[in-house]
Amino acid sequence: MALKPANLRSTQADKPLLAVLRGERRDPPPMWMMRQAGRYLPEYRQLREEKGSFLDLVYSSDAAAEITLQPLMRFPKLDAAILFSDILIVPFAIGQNLTFVTGEGPRMTPPLMTSALDQLTASPARLDPIYETVRKVRQQLPPDKTLIGFAGSPWTVSTYMVAGQGSREQAEARRLAYADPVRFGEIIARIEEVTLAYLSGQVEAGADALQLFDSWAGSLSPVQFEQWVIAPTARLVSALKSRHPKIPVIGFPKGAGGKVAAYARETGVDALGLDESVDPLWAARELPPKLPLQGNLDPLALIAGGEALERAVKRILDALAERPHIFNLGHGILQDTPIAHVEQLIALVKGG
Amino acid sequence: MALKPANLRSTQADKPLLAVLRGERRDPPPMWMMRQAGRYLPEYRQLREEKGSFLDLVYSSDAAAEITLQPLMRFPKLDAAILFSDILIVPFAIGQNLTFVTGEGPRMTPPLMTSALDQLTASPARLDPIYETVRKVRQQLPPDKTLIGFAGSPWTVSTYMVAGQGSREQAEARRLAYADPVRFGEIIARIEEVTLAYLSGQVEAGADALQLFDSWAGSLSPVQFEQWVIAPTARLVSALKSRHPKIPVIGFPKGAGGKVAAYARETGVDALGLDESVDPLWAARELPPKLPLQGNLDPLALIAGGEALERAVKRILDALAERPHIFNLGHGILQDTPIAHVEQLIALVKGG
Repeated sequence: MALKPANLRSTQADKPLLAVLRGERRDPPPMWMMRQAGRYLPEYRQLREEKGSFLDLVYSSDAAAEITLQPLMRFPKLDAAILFSDILIVPFAIGQNLTFVTGEGPRMTPPLMTSALDQLTASPARLDPIYETVRKVRQQLPPDKTLIGFAGSPWTVSTYMVAGQGSREQAEARRLAYADPVRFGEIIARIEEVTLAYLSGQVEAGADALQLFDSWAGSLSPVQFEQWVIAPTARLVSALKSRHPKIPVIGFPKGAGGKVAAYARETGVDALGLDESVDPLWAARELPPKLPLQGNLDPLALIAGGEALERAVKRILDALAERPHIFNLGHGILQDTPIAHVEQLIALVKGG
Repeated sequence: MALKPANLRSTQADKPLLAVLRGERRDPPPMWMMRQAGRYLPEYRQLREEKGSFLDLVYSSDAAAEITLQPLMRFPKLDAAILFSDILIVPFAIGQNLTFVTGEGPRMTPPLMTSALDQLTASPARLDPIYETVRKVRQQLPPDKTLIGFAGSPWTVSTYMVAGQGSREQAEARRLAYADPVRFGEIIARIEEVTLAYLSGQVEAGADALQLFDSWAGSLSPVQFEQWVIAPTARLVSALKSRHPKIPVIGFPKGAGGKVAAYARETGVDALGLDESVDPLWAARELPPKLPLQGNLDPLALIAGGEALERAVKRILDALAERPHIFNLGHGILQDTPIAHVEQLIALVKGG
């Protein structure tokens, strides 16, 4: 089964996901899956074997475009492609060295816990291959599909830049933020600036919508959440809006619990991603009534499949039936997710 | 500086922490620190070097009693001692083998992911040395200090029993709970039963109050949270109340975010522990007005010390000034916490 971009692009088709991001309700809801492409797909694993490391794939625009499109080739009812890239491209462009150690995750040198920001030499050209991927995807994407660009939020990116790697409960960044808020604020400001350029570049290359991943929003105290999640996100969204007023931004403050309400009110995002721990009934009741919500199936329910999956999907569809809703997982799809369960999920949401 | 139990026990002194757990307000609030004893204390590190492994210390009642009292010896303004033990004593009594691998955490065999519950041979005698510790602490504890016993919640304990170790996002237990809720329910029921016996034993040995640690409550979807956190906790609290109607139970559903409200309403706990991510202003406004709240200083603010600590403490004291409040951290004290900062914290809360 191949996509037929030439044919489909001959008409200006409706993009259901973009319509929902602009406040419409669609039934069935549009859907995509966080992180969407990845190791649960045999075609991804094959490409990975052929082409080398994760970062090699991200930096080969042909491979990255192919991976971005793989889920749509296999599951044509999905409504969006999300760029295959990584949130750590921004620190790489800021000047940290970046490697991925198999089984251990990313390593970034020098860590800003012990090194000054001005020791880094900016390398904005490190962003260019990503824009090339976006252009290639755009050329091949059917016109009814939305192309989602993304970046990490300043806070989440800072947790890696400060620790030089993933960190238990983000202790290093939280600690620096308490101990030296001025220096930490400079790190956040630099990430904001480069992220603005990076997301603008993705839009100029053809992204229809953007998502900000705030994977580590959950661990912060309320004051730190205001200062380091809400305020930088609000500044970034506002700057994006003045450059690209028609491009919707989805905010995804994972683990923020009840604080997603303040996030929704104060950041200016056009839509809110909910992780699986948020009760969709609570969200439907408490969040601004016109705000599109995205989520929030537990990836473990997808692994379970069968009746457990059916019940979990129905609960979300019912809870969000009166709102603009984009069906998604609450969190990235897991490596050992059976393809047949993804097919079951799509049939449950889309019919068929 | 030594405690003088004989002298102090000659009068029936007031226990401020217990008074607050029963609904009184005290100013300044009583305080203790989760996990309280531990590697930030040089006297603990010394005992650990002399006596061997963590589990050796837990199973030596003399050492465990000494460790339980160490923080009160050093910081006599603290209002409680919490038993030095571990939540994994319950699976050990259920019949899993338990070892602690330095730098890697606990290992439990066989894991229930792949083994049946009825392959385990119950070893209730493995609880007895813990009761002995409680008795020894009780004998030495000044009468104005509260002795807190504890256990893990059934859900949190199950995550270790199923995976056989700590697990990334508790995926193994969440997966089993979706795939085979009957079998998973049997595991939860067994943990409930042994935890009830274990906590009753601690009360009979002299514990004044109990805390249920639900360290992994955060990752669950709302339905799983109801089924595997709220329901078992409610059953356990109700059973404890019928055996020991005067012993207050503190519930600590870490990471539960906005769902702490349902937890507070539905479990029957006498007090609620708040992690550092919960806004105390929100808690003061939204949680049942007479419910005593415990928490919720960010352990990273304690590491930072100085003005950052001062601001963080003041914010919590102000937010909870109208309620029964027990000052505590939002999470366990970290190993590299300077003793001087603990002294600063106690002076900030207690004056002095």
